[in-house]
Amino acid sequence: MTPSKETTVDTSAPTDAGLLAPAWAGTPAAELVGDEAWLRTMLEVEVALARAQARLGLVPASAVSAIERAAASGLDLAGLAARARESANPVVGLVQALAAAVAAEEEAAAEFVHRGGTSQDILDSAAMLIAVRVLAVVDEDLRRLATSLAELAERHRADPMPGRTLTQHAVPITFGLKAAGWLNLVLDARDRLAHLAEIGLPAQLGGAAGTLSSYAEYGGAALPGGVTDLLPVFAAEVGLRDPVLPWHTARAPVADLAALLTFIAGALGKIALDVQGLARTEVAEVAEPAAAGRGASSAMPQKVNPVLSTLVVTAARQVPLYATVLAQSMLAEDERAAGAWHAEWQPLRECLRLVGGAAHTAAELAEGLVVHPDRMRANLGASGGAIVAERLTAVLAPVLGRAPAKALLARLSAEAAAGAGGFGDLLRAAPEVAEVLDPATVIELLDPERYLGASQALVDRALKRYVNSAR
Amino acid sequence: MTPSKETTVDTSAPTDAGLLAPAWAGTPAAELVGDEAWLRTMLEVEVALARAQARLGLVPASAVSAIERAAASGLDLAGLAARARESANPVVGLVQALAAAVAAEEEAAAEFVHRGGTSQDILDSAAMLIAVRVLAVVDEDLRRLATSLAELAERHRADPMPGRTLTQHAVPITFGLKAAGWLNLVLDARDRLAHLAEIGLPAQLGGAAGTLSSYAEYGGAALPGGVTDLLPVFAAEVGLRDPVLPWHTARAPVADLAALLTFIAGALGKIALDVQGLARTEVAEVAEPAAAGRGASSAMPQKVNPVLSTLVVTAARQVPLYATVLAQSMLAEDERAAGAWHAEWQPLRECLRLVGGAAHTAAELAEGLVVHPDRMRANLGASGGAIVAERLTAVLAPVLGRAPAKALLARLSAEAAAGAGGFGDLLRAAPEVAEVLDPATVIELLDPERYLGASQALVDRALKRYVNSAR
Amino acid sequence: MTPSKETTVDTSAPTDAGLLAPAWAGTPAAELVGDEAWLRTMLEVEVALARAQARLGLVPASAVSAIERAAASGLDLAGLAARARESANPVVGLVQALAAAVAAEEEAAAEFVHRGGTSQDILDSAAMLIAVRVLAVVDEDLRRLATSLAELAERHRADPMPGRTLTQHAVPITFGLKAAGWLNLVLDARDRLAHLAEIGLPAQLGGAAGTLSSYAEYGGAALPGGVTDLLPVFAAEVGLRDPVLPWHTARAPVADLAALLTFIAGALGKIALDVQGLARTEVAEVAEPAAAGRGASSAMPQKVNPVLSTLVVTAARQVPLYATVLAQSMLAEDERAAGAWHAEWQPLRECLRLVGGAAHTAAELAEGLVVHPDRMRANLGASGGAIVAERLTAVLAPVLGRAPAKALLARLSAEAAAGAGGFGDLLRAAPEVAEVLDPATVIELLDPERYLGASQALVDRALKRYVNSAR
Amino acid sequence: MTPSKETTVDTSAPTDAGLLAPAWAGTPAAELVGDEAWLRTMLEVEVALARAQARLGLVPASAVSAIERAAASGLDLAGLAARARESANPVVGLVQALAAAVAAEEEAAAEFVHRGGTSQDILDSAAMLIAVRVLAVVDEDLRRLATSLAELAERHRADPMPGRTLTQHAVPITFGLKAAGWLNLVLDARDRLAHLAEIGLPAQLGGAAGTLSSYAEYGGAALPGGVTDLLPVFAAEVGLRDPVLPWHTARAPVADLAALLTFIAGALGKIALDVQGLARTEVAEVAEPAAAGRGASSAMPQKVNPVLSTLVVTAARQVPLYATVLAQSMLAEDERAAGAWHAEWQPLRECLRLVGGAAHTAAELAEGLVVHPDRMRANLGASGGAIVAERLTAVLAPVLGRAPAKALLARLSAEAAAGAGGFGDLLRAAPEVAEVLDPATVIELLDPERYLGASQALVDRALKRYVNSAR
Repeated sequence: MTPSKETTVDTSAPTDAGLLAPAWAGTPAAELVGDEAWLRTMLEVEVALARAQARLGLVPASAVSAIERAAASGLDLAGLAARARESANPVVGLVQALAAAVAAEEEAAAEFVHRGGTSQDILDSAAMLIAVRVLAVVDEDLRRLATSLAELAERHRADPMPGRTLTQHAVPITFGLKAAGWLNLVLDARDRLAHLAEIGLPAQLGGAAGTLSSYAEYGGAALPGGVTDLLPVFAAEVGLRDPVLPWHTARAPVADLAALLTFIAGALGKIALDVQGLARTEVAEVAEPAAAGRGASSAMPQKVNPVLSTLVVTAARQVPLYATVLAQSMLAEDERAAGAWHAEWQPLRECLRLVGGAAHTAAELAEGLVVHPDRMRANLGASGGAIVAERLTAVLAPVLGRAPAKALLARLSAEAAAGAGGFGDLLRAAPEVAEVLDPATVIELLDPERYLGASQALVDRALKRYVNSAR
Repeated sequence: MTPSKETTVDTSAPTDAGLLAPAWAGTPAAELVGDEAWLRTMLEVEVALARAQARLGLVPASAVSAIERAAASGLDLAGLAARARESANPVVGLVQALAAAVAAEEEAAAEFVHRGGTSQDILDSAAMLIAVRVLAVVDEDLRRLATSLAELAERHRADPMPGRTLTQHAVPITFGLKAAGWLNLVLDARDRLAHLAEIGLPAQLGGAAGTLSSYAEYGGAALPGGVTDLLPVFAAEVGLRDPVLPWHTARAPVADLAALLTFIAGALGKIALDVQGLARTEVAEVAEPAAAGRGASSAMPQKVNPVLSTLVVTAARQVPLYATVLAQSMLAEDERAAGAWHAEWQPLRECLRLVGGAAHTAAELAEGLVVHPDRMRANLGASGGAIVAERLTAVLAPVLGRAPAKALLARLSAEAAAGAGGFGDLLRAAPEVAEVLDPATVIELLDPERYLGASQALVDRALKRYVNSAR
Repeated sequence: MTPSKETTVDTSAPTDAGLLAPAWAGTPAAELVGDEAWLRTMLEVEVALARAQARLGLVPASAVSAIERAAASGLDLAGLAARARESANPVVGLVQALAAAVAAEEEAAAEFVHRGGTSQDILDSAAMLIAVRVLAVVDEDLRRLATSLAELAERHRADPMPGRTLTQHAVPITFGLKAAGWLNLVLDARDRLAHLAEIGLPAQLGGAAGTLSSYAEYGGAALPGGVTDLLPVFAAEVGLRDPVLPWHTARAPVADLAALLTFIAGALGKIALDVQGLARTEVAEVAEPAAAGRGASSAMPQKVNPVLSTLVVTAARQVPLYATVLAQSMLAEDERAAGAWHAEWQPLRECLRLVGGAAHTAAELAEGLVVHPDRMRANLGASGGAIVAERLTAVLAPVLGRAPAKALLARLSAEAAAGAGGFGDLLRAAPEVAEVLDPATVIELLDPERYLGASQALVDRALKRYVNSAR
Repeated sequence: MTPSKETTVDTSAPTDAGLLAPAWAGTPAAELVGDEAWLRTMLEVEVALARAQARLGLVPASAVSAIERAAASGLDLAGLAARARESANPVVGLVQALAAAVAAEEEAAAEFVHRGGTSQDILDSAAMLIAVRVLAVVDEDLRRLATSLAELAERHRADPMPGRTLTQHAVPITFGLKAAGWLNLVLDARDRLAHLAEIGLPAQLGGAAGTLSSYAEYGGAALPGGVTDLLPVFAAEVGLRDPVLPWHTARAPVADLAALLTFIAGALGKIALDVQGLARTEVAEVAEPAAAGRGASSAMPQKVNPVLSTLVVTAARQVPLYATVLAQSMLAEDERAAGAWHAEWQPLRECLRLVGGAAHTAAELAEGLVVHPDRMRANLGASGGAIVAERLTAVLAPVLGRAPAKALLARLSAEAAAGAGGFGDLLRAAPEVAEVLDPATVIELLDPERYLGASQALVDRALKRYVNSAR
């Protein structure tokens, strides 16, 4: 069953359409988690519950049909939102509205609506279903992203650029290695997503206090294996994992989602942060993919802002905090918590769509990333060779002694920074050096492209993992 | 000018109507911060900017009128939300749409739309305006709440109940003292709100990088005091404080709001948490105000859930984390941050409406709180007098020695807990006690109502503050 | 090699000994993560680096011996702490001190100290080693905890007690089911711990910017497979996983630890929170294990505070926030971050010891938990049968109609709560009921012990999982 | 009284000396909040309590002297830390140890130790005292910082540099304006600190459940104004504000500290983040103050890492999360919370020393900041004039039309970025421009130093505030 999208929206009530959320507005995840989707999915769970009970002979098939039809016709969203205040959750009102809609069709069927159910069975199952759907979309975008990053790693495996640590040029790396690092992190994210998919997000079914007593009372106790027979059947019907126990106040699935979404947001955020750094005016080693009007400023015509990476970074700054609300919901007392559960819904939804938006945006970013190897080489050379001072230490230490070698190189790079000349020139001019190294050797040692370490071998390690993961 | 509410909503786009947010859905704050409100307020700021420039002779009056009319006719919300992705903020699209609407009315006026402005000038000023409006509503609800709590403190100043520490009965208190403690915290919250109102939330006006150069270029440089003359005029027009400097990446006002909203949420949450504890089935010292259908369970007819306190607790669990996103936005680099600013909007909005909803709900809760002094007395007596063991130590220590006295009382209370008899009876029967205290004294000492310490004097201290604050 | 514990402590410098951290002070994890342990472990990593290079022929065996001896003799902790300010990390000073100590023994060996290494290689590897060690201790305590909880679940599988939702009695459960819920959550925690152990925490080795160039320069480039040969050898030597790539700014392992530690803290916190609720004076269904002096109050001799659960809850309130710092460290720019990395150390350490302390404490709590089935039964009966109103609805709905049945039962329970009589008595007296149900049936229906749903079957599901996990 | 520093440290217990915390190790705040300081301050509070009671005639003067002497002789820190596990707080053990020490001196005095007190009275009062002391140090460092920033703002008021928004050059600013923005934020921080100092951090005094009943029992009830007379006397003796009510579970002071410390950390972090951005190798507009060895790399001799700003950023990344634990402690149930209170101590201490360290470090950074105006000018010119495209739009719009003008300038800047020539040259060569502007005008318009807007006037606004604040 696919409940219809014709949900009524009372446009006089305040609504959010994503005006303040460019990080996800207009991306595929947004539609999967909006209020309309949440309402549809809760109705879907109510239908699944009736179907599961029907499969076990506890509910007549005709009632299921009536419930399906009523669910498909939609309910008044804003009205339900307003009524949720009475019971602190939207399900009580939804059940009443659904039962009324069913009764209007077929009075006898109404009593089978939500039969034996508790609000949390419906809302939690719907939340898990929605999470599964968003994660599928996210994983596809992560796959696209990984593909693009693997291509970047391969293409630029040997393109040198400055490695930067604590904001300063350190030693040379290649852009391929940087892309391989991003790729590896995305593969980490996909592995964690796959692991959670493998565990499976569970259906929720427990009744009022997790004993299934209401389901038992409505005939479930007479099932061959007792009312717990209902668990796998409902889980299958709703398309989720059969839980060991009801988890009304054992919020492992929510904590798992929090951790996963935080991880993905962090991985994407790392990439975007690096892109922003490399796109800075003075660095200019990469640029975001051009698109008509994108990144334009209303006042400054020369501006092309790194909009995509900004959207990803914005998501990555928010998700860990929303996810903390979710993690803290593990501190849920008794058989149903008076506040912790209710605090999950908005941050869970926001995490899902922020991560969905970020993955979509990151894929677009990587697919069109403009790389400027020439600029990388230019920046690499800007220090006149000081970027390979580490190597020179290693070479000079055996002949000059380690401490004197370091002191010499530190002094020369400070003089170069102060404007006394190019580092390489000062080095060649230094008598201590001239005594022990011939000029050709110095020139060779000063070449950043000859001090790339294992950059390419490391690219290969990441690509090997990528190829294996893509099988 | 009050821009009209006739904002077009594209109902095919996903929208949120508060289905997952009973903590604020249907409360007054919700309407003040929805996307429609945000859009209207941004238009209001654009109008204020034109008016301010007009007052200084930089924009013709006719253009202002055209801009006012266009702003009042509203814009396509969902369309703007979708377009925000292009520039990572909703203002660029808003300005284009507004300019088009103005041009349709009066072509020459269009160039005066957003003249010299930058997106952040508009969005930040709108955010501050919205915050001011929500805080006014919140303060009124806090005032109502304080009034109710003062009445509770006065009425129940002498009604004894168990004081509880680390989950256990400690020594007696009065319910009036508990209410006075809640009241004092609410007065703390109002003081902090008043202090922020006194500082004043600032208008934002800086142009592209905070130098006002664009405003200067459009004639502002020629003003008598230079373009900074525009600052106080715009601030007055928009109804906000004149800032010392543009604060594009100096986010003091946002951090201040974060702190204030966290404080209020915490104060309300403390009250709600206590109500929940006192409403537990076994305690039953207070009950939430009855309302038809409120707190009902779909399956358990005996249930009256403490819905109002649950809504408040839920808000109080979320706000500190959203507010942390805001506090972290102080780490904003350069003249405009590439992500930190964008991360503020959703959590700021959510904090505002959660606190707005919580204050409204808490006022309703306090106004109708049902107090059961009889039950308090019954619970107080349940330990058979062990609740005043602290007092007995003080009395017996001088005669028995401090350590032996404590050991005796600990032993007797453990025996009572193990079912050997009432604590008072065991005490009277203990030969060490009988030797030094006559039975009448023991009975008097065992009376919890005679061991209330300074409860009433402390109630007076809080009420005195309340009376002073209410002047 | 086991570096000695004889680290010098300058007692004039301020030190922390756990005075403000009863949640971990005195538990096994504390010793594994203190400054002394961190220092020892960093020295251990330096030794492992020398050994790994020696195994590949890059460092002479005699140098390794000298480094081992110097490392075993310890370094001045407070001095290193003070010097860390110069370079923003403790490794630079440690390397200098270690090299000096080695030189004092055997001058030629000093140049092989930290050869090719970068600070982050040492500190990250040490952090992972420490995490591995703490997790081993945590897992053992979780195992003990699971064993105790399985016993509780089995022993009390049929002991009825009130199920509580939103602070109110809902329907009956058994204490065995509650313990089974705790057990299942602990098994979830162990699974997640086992999964991370299976992935393996990685060694860190990358050199200045993650290219291994320095290691290559010191001979590594000449290895058969190039300098990347060093990765698996070092990883084996230090006892960690061989990483695909250096992860200086790809903080997956740190994010994984943050997620795992948050999960465990939440699972333990849930159990402790429930214990606190059940131990409340008015509920008194469980008590913490007695121990001389534990939980005593300095002034109130009757008090036995639930100290163990308080310690666990305290940890569970802190860990998610410290872990958020760790999760946010994924936003690490370039090849080494200027602040994000440095922000990890303290919160990682604190998370590790808080979780270590909490697991240890929870095991002690569960092993000695005192359960009072009589009190559970008494509380269950306190509502006079209203706790089974859900069941009565199911029975009466077919004869009275669902809505009238619910209304009747809601009215009767409200009357009972208002003091009009016992719920059961009112029920039997109600003419609508008397007409359709004979008194004996009513009495049977009112028995909470006959409305336990699938409590026992659910206990079996959890125990089955436990048995499988324990194999 | 100043309790001695001769606290015994058991060096076999694990201790922290700041090895992982270069952000505060070795700064003045560190010593004020270590375990030794905490222990001393709790003893100081015990002494103040005895003195206050003595002033009211409730405790004999000779007992006070004995308590002072015992407090001054110190206690075993590690032993107390270990014993804190028994009662979940360090005060119970401290009181026992102190009483024993007093008894050893003068047996009769021991009963006056902690007379009527509860653990939370001591620990909370000590925490507030420590906070007051750290804030005094912080404020002095903020004052130093403001002075340096005011000098920088004045000195560089007219030194132009690129304004940067979303990582890209936007329009010119002056370095003086940037420093003025930092200054203004520091003044905001000082204002908030001064406001909290004006409110005053309160003493804690309530007895077991906040009724002062124990203090009343020990004679306080007979005081002229009743036992509440003790409140102002104790507050004066301990040097804190007289609270309206005991605040055992009304955590306003803790929430206030959390907000203040977060604000200061954020303000300092913003400055440090900007310094890091300006110090990047490619930008190089500022450098950190040189100091022998500081910022050096163990392997890369050319490196001078921005260590001071990194230490500040590190603090700013941690504080908001620790402070969130504190804010969440407002959710404290009953008369004393079973976990929330205990969760405050470590994060409060860590926030205090991180902010103390950051303020100290930021002052050192600003005092020695090396500014390179030449490099700023060079970077400003790097875009060949495109940085003033906003101005050119304003000039060309009236003649070419706004949209065509913007399109032209966007095209030219894109061509310049693509290497087709300098932006200024392309502009002068554009026929549309040549038609309407003479070459000299174009050259003048292209000069970034003539498009600084109100930079200097804004500097004056901030300096005026600074001068007023410094009076």
